[in-house]
Amino acid sequence: MTILGEQIIGHAVSKGTNGELRGLDAATGKALEPGFGGATLADLDRACELADAAFDAYRETSLEDRAKFLETIADEILALGDELIERCCQESGLPRGRIEGERGRTMGQLRMFAGVLRDGGFLDARVDPAQPERKPLPRVDLRLRNIPVGPVAVFGASNFPLAFSVAGGDTASALAAGAPVVAKAHSAHPGTSELVGRAILKAAQTCGMPEGVFSLLYGTGREIGQGLVADRRIKAVGFTGSRAGGTALMKVAAARPEPIPVYAEMSSINPVILFPAALAARGEAIGKAFAGSLTLGAGQFCTNPGLVLAVDGPGIEAFEKGAAEALSAMPAAVMLTPGIHKAYVDGVSAVEGHAAVKTVAKGEAGGELRGQAALFQVAAPDFVAHPELQDEVFGAASIVIRCRDEAELHSVLASLEGQLTAAIHIDEADHAAAKAILPILERKAGRILVNGFGTGVEVGHAMVHGGPFPSTADGRSTSVGSKAIERFLRPVSYQDMPEALLPDALKDANPLGLWRRNDGKLVAPKG
Amino acid sequence: MTILGEQIIGHAVSKGTNGELRGLDAATGKALEPGFGGATLADLDRACELADAAFDAYRETSLEDRAKFLETIADEILALGDELIERCCQESGLPRGRIEGERGRTMGQLRMFAGVLRDGGFLDARVDPAQPERKPLPRVDLRLRNIPVGPVAVFGASNFPLAFSVAGGDTASALAAGAPVVAKAHSAHPGTSELVGRAILKAAQTCGMPEGVFSLLYGTGREIGQGLVADRRIKAVGFTGSRAGGTALMKVAAARPEPIPVYAEMSSINPVILFPAALAARGEAIGKAFAGSLTLGAGQFCTNPGLVLAVDGPGIEAFEKGAAEALSAMPAAVMLTPGIHKAYVDGVSAVEGHAAVKTVAKGEAGGELRGQAALFQVAAPDFVAHPELQDEVFGAASIVIRCRDEAELHSVLASLEGQLTAAIHIDEADHAAAKAILPILERKAGRILVNGFGTGVEVGHAMVHGGPFPSTADGRSTSVGSKAIERFLRPVSYQDMPEALLPDALKDANPLGLWRRNDGKLVAPKG
Repeated sequence: MTILGEQIIGHAVSKGTNGELRGLDAATGKALEPGFGGATLADLDRACELADAAFDAYRETSLEDRAKFLETIADEILALGDELIERCCQESGLPRGRIEGERGRTMGQLRMFAGVLRDGGFLDARVDPAQPERKPLPRVDLRLRNIPVGPVAVFGASNFPLAFSVAGGDTASALAAGAPVVAKAHSAHPGTSELVGRAILKAAQTCGMPEGVFSLLYGTGREIGQGLVADRRIKAVGFTGSRAGGTALMKVAAARPEPIPVYAEMSSINPVILFPAALAARGEAIGKAFAGSLTLGAGQFCTNPGLVLAVDGPGIEAFEKGAAEALSAMPAAVMLTPGIHKAYVDGVSAVEGHAAVKTVAKGEAGGELRGQAALFQVAAPDFVAHPELQDEVFGAASIVIRCRDEAELHSVLASLEGQLTAAIHIDEADHAAAKAILPILERKAGRILVNGFGTGVEVGHAMVHGGPFPSTADGRSTSVGSKAIERFLRPVSYQDMPEALLPDALKDANPLGLWRRNDGKLVAPKG
Repeated sequence: MTILGEQIIGHAVSKGTNGELRGLDAATGKALEPGFGGATLADLDRACELADAAFDAYRETSLEDRAKFLETIADEILALGDELIERCCQESGLPRGRIEGERGRTMGQLRMFAGVLRDGGFLDARVDPAQPERKPLPRVDLRLRNIPVGPVAVFGASNFPLAFSVAGGDTASALAAGAPVVAKAHSAHPGTSELVGRAILKAAQTCGMPEGVFSLLYGTGREIGQGLVADRRIKAVGFTGSRAGGTALMKVAAARPEPIPVYAEMSSINPVILFPAALAARGEAIGKAFAGSLTLGAGQFCTNPGLVLAVDGPGIEAFEKGAAEALSAMPAAVMLTPGIHKAYVDGVSAVEGHAAVKTVAKGEAGGELRGQAALFQVAAPDFVAHPELQDEVFGAASIVIRCRDEAELHSVLASLEGQLTAAIHIDEADHAAAKAILPILERKAGRILVNGFGTGVEVGHAMVHGGPFPSTADGRSTSVGSKAIERFLRPVSYQDMPEALLPDALKDANPLGLWRRNDGKLVAPKG
């Protein structure tokens, strides 16, 4: 396959005529071939029209057919072979091993949602049978299932060019839910996007899915992205990116005649809390491990550990020593885009120049487009007094907050905004103190982890990659794992509907073999 | 118990000092004793402070203790006896039988949520066990449960002074979720609100619930309601009322530094679609039944059938004849408040005076504060051309849309805004036509019912009382039935957490006896 710079609208590919954008070689900043045509408003309209037209047919495809569609997308992504890996490495500056791993994860997500479809639990099928003899009034027959909300807009993320972009978690969960997807490629990796988009198109055609189940557009400015969120046929939005970008889309969505939900995963500094016994036993080792997590992927993870908290003492000094040693040997790493690199350099120098902040360690010097890791230190009262120090610096920078005592540590935590993750490092002697802190962390974060760092995000059934605002727009949801499908569903109830008209999920004979709630009690499928 | 005009803040009752409001006798418009003191901003602050302080303790009460608390509230409401029924009838103008029924429903809701708590399924407990041997990376241990979002603001509804007010569905589902409630009484029934509020307070004290789990405020203007939604400690809002009121709260919530979800149930005209075979067999009878549903509770239901659609012909004429006969004998009924009565009279005269509209029938003439039922007719193209005819007229008024053919009927339906319910009247010969219309209705409404009307809203597990905007602010939710609890929950994931620190819902031994998802598969509790 060759990258042609073409958008995908339904089953048709074409060159957009609204300006041109190019991928850049992340390591050199040089523009790559070919140019990508930006979508016009007419292209956008057509993509949304086809998505809307495909919706009713697509949402009533069988669970098995939709599962096969997702699996076929995974197969087609793998079939792109080295061309995908090479282009993706080039556009993102990320090393081959990481991109191969991310491809595996992307395929794994699609296959996981195939399993979610075959399980059918996401339909939340419920039957409250009629009670014709009930007094004073007979009870009607009521049945409930989830249906998809409608066509979904998906925005590719800069930092996961595969796993959170064109065929990433948002697309996989929306397609699993039965929602057509109109994707907007991230401008940082248009070539990767086109390759993956073509894989989805091929799978849609192979599997006989209705035209419009998927479209892919490029946009040179904000017009297409904001227009997509504003389009009346779009009923939900999946986004991973900056706080400014996410909140802008939230505003557009809230201002529509019919407001729609935006699932934006935006900004998180992921506090790491180090407890005394753990620090005493292995402060230096935790510091070294921390440095590894901080610099993974040039620090360009939503779950990057941007904040470390501990009560002052020799333990935290050992941690800083270990972290500083490891960090100072870390080579500077190519960042995703020149823009991200510049924002990182600016963010780091703002922290570094802050009167209250002391520099603990730095990584090897950064060259052109490479980020230099950095670890800072600030006293707790200064951190609380300067909310700007809470702003995410996207990249391998972190701040250690030394607290006078546990109470001060609690008050720092309570002052934090919402987070994707919070990590605690503990030994058994720390359990009581950890127990006291858990309620604070539960209010602040979607995932709480012990003796680790948030940078590994397991794709599973018990994963929450989401948290209170501003870590996400909607802390009731996750964008990773099987629960992500719930974002794109709404319940519909059927009252006294004849068997012939009921959806299969709710027929008496339970032909889909679903677990259902009968009068509120879970009942296993027969057979 | 005596009604004293007092607010409830935590465990303390006091007279608010920010102006005074009074309940009115709905039938006469006369002010009732006593005066109710409006809350000050300091009262609001104190109620939110207590709710926030109670949150961590309340959310970790056992499922059984919370279930008993809800059941005790139901018992205490019943113990209010005739004083509650009489005051509620007086303030609402609704007849005794209806209010007694509504009290039963209110208690039934509380008890249903006690059952939901004992079932525990709402926690969505999930365990993905560690796989230390997995390649290339070992898998961590991940567990997930839902926790409540935080303190919830509940706004009483004018039209359900018991079932959707101080101890109504929003309060019951929030308290069940583990969320403290700060309720704002509806100004139309402050006496009813105080009585019910005192019942909750008594139950909270009897059951040893933390102070702040419940507060009740009165507000003379918008300051308290909007201030409640804006308060940083409030994390979600339950509201039933007008579209203007609901969208105003949505704007306040979206403009907060931390936006929060608003579950506003607002506006719906609940289309009824009559199919040819059903009309031919029993058009007149359907018309009579329709008139009964339309005038129930003076038409003051969110699910009132405000729109009737059918293909033109003798069937729809028979329907109109039956409806007109029944309607013209319907006595005018006292409406909830003078304001609602005035809005109804204005709304009806606007429709009546509309150039495209013909009057089919009217009920008996309304007297002071009584609403006169009304049925109108309009041709389909005129209805589509005049979107103002889609505006809800709250009360016993409805419009028949005669369509030339099925295609026109489909296009009228497609032009509608989101609805709580859609009803179809069919015989077996109508099944094919009904099947064609279902996808349209599923997109538009939260509940689809057959050969009935939406005015009976069963409280059960398969009920959806919700629908696309503007019928509710958030069509992914229901405000009636056991699924209503989901509105006030968010998932939290625990990674590699030692057994000693895990919440009971997620411990290996499953001490709560929950159904859980293990690696995505439902597993029954042992024993």
